[in-house]
Amino acid sequence: MNHRFACEVYYEDTDLSGFVYHANYLKFIERARSAWVAGLGVNQNAMREAGLVFAVRRIEADFLAPARLGDALEVQTEVASQTAARMVLAQSVMKDGVALFDAQVTLVAMGTGGRPVRLPEALRGALDAGQA
Amino acid sequence: MNHRFACEVYYEDTDLSGFVYHANYLKFIERARSAWVAGLGVNQNAMREAGLVFAVRRIEADFLAPARLGDALEVQTEVASQTAARMVLAQSVMKDGVALFDAQVTLVAMGTGGRPVRLPEALRGALDAGQA
Amino acid sequence: MNHRFACEVYYEDTDLSGFVYHANYLKFIERARSAWVAGLGVNQNAMREAGLVFAVRRIEADFLAPARLGDALEVQTEVASQTAARMVLAQSVMKDGVALFDAQVTLVAMGTGGRPVRLPEALRGALDAGQA
Amino acid sequence: MNHRFACEVYYEDTDLSGFVYHANYLKFIERARSAWVAGLGVNQNAMREAGLVFAVRRIEADFLAPARLGDALEVQTEVASQTAARMVLAQSVMKDGVALFDAQVTLVAMGTGGRPVRLPEALRGALDAGQA
Repeated sequence: MNHRFACEVYYEDTDLSGFVYHANYLKFIERARSAWVAGLGVNQNAMREAGLVFAVRRIEADFLAPARLGDALEVQTEVASQTAARMVLAQSVMKDGVALFDAQVTLVAMGTGGRPVRLPEALRGALDAGQA
Repeated sequence: MNHRFACEVYYEDTDLSGFVYHANYLKFIERARSAWVAGLGVNQNAMREAGLVFAVRRIEADFLAPARLGDALEVQTEVASQTAARMVLAQSVMKDGVALFDAQVTLVAMGTGGRPVRLPEALRGALDAGQA
Repeated sequence: MNHRFACEVYYEDTDLSGFVYHANYLKFIERARSAWVAGLGVNQNAMREAGLVFAVRRIEADFLAPARLGDALEVQTEVASQTAARMVLAQSVMKDGVALFDAQVTLVAMGTGGRPVRLPEALRGALDAGQA
Repeated sequence: MNHRFACEVYYEDTDLSGFVYHANYLKFIERARSAWVAGLGVNQNAMREAGLVFAVRRIEADFLAPARLGDALEVQTEVASQTAARMVLAQSVMKDGVALFDAQVTLVAMGTGGRPVRLPEALRGALDAGQA
C-alpha cells in the first residue's frame, strides 16, 4: 500500500547541471514522510517537545533519471519492514509514472542525547493496522 | 573595522542559471556572522541551551554581480550601529576585491517563545571595545 | 491584486532555533514567483534555453514572526511597480492571516554573461493587462 | 589513500532536532569531492561548458552519530573501485577521529541530455597514478 505525495521542482532545487541537485531528492522524500506520519496522527512538534525526534539511520538510493525545473513529481512511500525500534521505508520519486529516484530509508526514533527509543505508539499502531 | 571570512562556492550553492542561487548569499553572510561571534567568545550552542538565539529582524540586500562554482569569496562584516537590544551589520560578499553582494542586516537576540531580549553581554562588551 | 501560493514548512526548512531558517523565506517567495510567472504563461525552462534568466537585484525583507514545522503558509505576491527592464514585487508570507515575513523584491531579466535585458514580452503584457 | 577536507557546521546545516539535517551530509561529501577533483586538475566549470557533468548514480549511507552546530568536521575520501565509465568512492564524515557518517558513492560522467560518458581523462589518469 502506497502513500502518495505531490512535489514540484523549483529553482532552489536545481544546480548548474540544469537538473535537480542530487541531495535534494532526500528532501523530497523527507517531506513525503512528514506528510505521511502527520496523516497517521503523529505530531512531530509534540514529539520534539517530548524530547523525541525521528532519525534516519541508513539510506540506499538510486538516482535513475534527472528531474528538471517545473517537473511535477510524486513521492510514493511504503513500509518495507519494521520492528518496535526501527522501520524501513521504500520511497520512490516518480514523474509521469516513471521512477527517477528510488530509496530504502531506515528510520529510528531518537531521544534526547541521541539514544534510540521505541517508535511512537501511534505510528506502530497505524502500521500494525496496515494503514501504510 | 572589518571581519573577514573565506567561503567557496560549491555545486549545492548554484542553480540552473549557472550562478549562485540568490538566497544562498544569506547563508554565506550568516556563516561569517557565526564565525565572527564565535571569535568574540559567544558560544551559540550555550546560548541556545540558555533559551536564547540570534534572530534576523531585517535585511536590505543588493545583488550586484553573480558568483560561480569554484569562486573563492570573502565575506566582510562590520558593525554599522547598535543598541542594547539590536545591532545592524554591514556585510559584503567580495570576489577579487569586488563586491558581488551587499547587505545591511539587523539582528536581535530572542528568548524562548520569540520575545526579544538584550544582546549577550560578551557581544556588547566586545562591540564597545571596538573589536568588530 | 494578489497572487496566492500555498507552502508548508518541512524539517529541511527549520534550524536549531526550532523555527524556519531565515534565508528559507526567500525560497518560499521564489517558489511563489515561479508559480505566478508560470500562471502568466512564462516558461522558465524555455527562457533559459533562450539564454535568459530572472535575476533578483534587490531585496528588502522584514522578519516579523517565526514560522514552525508543519505551519501552512500562504505567500501573497503583487506588483508594486515596473518598467520595461525591472519589476518590483511586494511579497508576504502569511499564517492564518498574519504576516510573518514581508519583502520588496526587485527583479530583472538577465542574458548570457550577466547583462540585463528587457523582461519577457508575455510577462510585460500580462502586467499591463492587470493580471497580477 | 585518503583525501581530507575540512568542513564546519553552520546554522543552515541544522534542523529543529538540534543536529545536522540528514541530507546535508550529502552536501558535505560533495564539497569534498569537488575539492578532490579540483586538486586533480579537473575544472568542473570547463567540464560543464563542454557539455559534461558528474552525476551521482547511487549512494549507500549510514548515519552513525549526529553532528552539531560549530562542529569541525573532516571528510575523508578514497576510491573504492573504478571503471572507464564509473567510479565508487568511500567517503566518511569524521569528528575528532570518529566517523559520524559513512557513504559509498557511485559517480558517472553525464553528457548533454543525460547520457553517461567516459570519465574525464585527467581524472582517470590521476586515479591510475594512485593519486587518490
